[in-house]
Amino acid sequence: MPLPGPLQDLVAEFQRLPGIGHKSAQRLGLHLMAQPVEAIERLASVLVSARRALSRCSVCHDLADGAICRICADPARDGGLLAVVSGTREVLALERTREFKGRYHVLGGLLSPLDGIGPEQLNIRTLLERLRDPALREVLLALEPTVEGEATTLYLSRLLVPMGLTCTRLASGLSAGAELDIVDEVTLARAFEGRRPIA
Amino acid sequence: MPLPGPLQDLVAEFQRLPGIGHKSAQRLGLHLMAQPVEAIERLASVLVSARRALSRCSVCHDLADGAICRICADPARDGGLLAVVSGTREVLALERTREFKGRYHVLGGLLSPLDGIGPEQLNIRTLLERLRDPALREVLLALEPTVEGEATTLYLSRLLVPMGLTCTRLASGLSAGAELDIVDEVTLARAFEGRRPIA
Repeated sequence: MPLPGPLQDLVAEFQRLPGIGHKSAQRLGLHLMAQPVEAIERLASVLVSARRALSRCSVCHDLADGAICRICADPARDGGLLAVVSGTREVLALERTREFKGRYHVLGGLLSPLDGIGPEQLNIRTLLERLRDPALREVLLALEPTVEGEATTLYLSRLLVPMGLTCTRLASGLSAGAELDIVDEVTLARAFEGRRPIA
Repeated sequence: MPLPGPLQDLVAEFQRLPGIGHKSAQRLGLHLMAQPVEAIERLASVLVSARRALSRCSVCHDLADGAICRICADPARDGGLLAVVSGTREVLALERTREFKGRYHVLGGLLSPLDGIGPEQLNIRTLLERLRDPALREVLLALEPTVEGEATTLYLSRLLVPMGLTCTRLASGLSAGAELDIVDEVTLARAFEGRRPIA
């Protein structure tokens, strides 16, 4: 038996979401269709009003519920340290460490020529403008150690280093709790290459 | 950094959905907030219109996009065999076997006194009405072998057997591909109890 048409449409929509396969989409659809109409109308309205209320911070391009996001508006953050990240999830990850007190610049993705994402598709022009700030001491290229992340780090470092800026990247090496015989060889080679003196 | 307020509300809504934890909810929220406003409005509208278009079949209580669901409306289905199931997911599971050609009755849940679900909360009155149909040969209590499913099977069989109806249940036993030394003892005991002659 196929599902009723309207439910099929809904399941198809859910399957486009990240991490939602056919089974999860069907489960979500059936769960929602068992709720009262009012509950579904409320969910739809929360969804639309959240999207309408959010825009991009005019300084760092992160999600914001005003013209400027909370971090850019916070005078306690260190304006001398700027972390360049691909998106909001990476901002949240760095915030969870509670170690980073600087500001962010959200690129909105990573270079990926095969997907049609070149420098023009990323927020690089506004990054270069922010780099003119004389208070800036260090730019941390906090991009993921993937093919796209490495390409973007290389591209940006070639722009930034000649400007005389201190340009850093996140350390590569062992995860906390890692077992040496299980770690992949690239990670272990990088951990060796980045070895540090003890005390 | 906390998320912007509207996004927090949305993530809280998503966390109420089955199988969606905090991380998945945040991931979904961030994904959706990166989509154009029009795409979100369309998703919200598919959601609400699906819910409004669906109701319960007046015969079997399954989800339907009309007064009667597709299975109840299908003259090719065997009206002599009625499967009693807890919900739509169980209808879909039986349909996937392509073996069951009868009709369904959806209880809308299972007996669970601790959750306040007694016989009055389930579609039992309409089931008893359907049992008056003289064409009916067999009622299959196709409920899950869980505490609630077993309690519901017992409750219904006590009502149905005295009515002189042939009342069956799904076989318990080994899953396809099961390894004997890994199967739990309750399942193996049931497989032994239900052993069948070979050819």
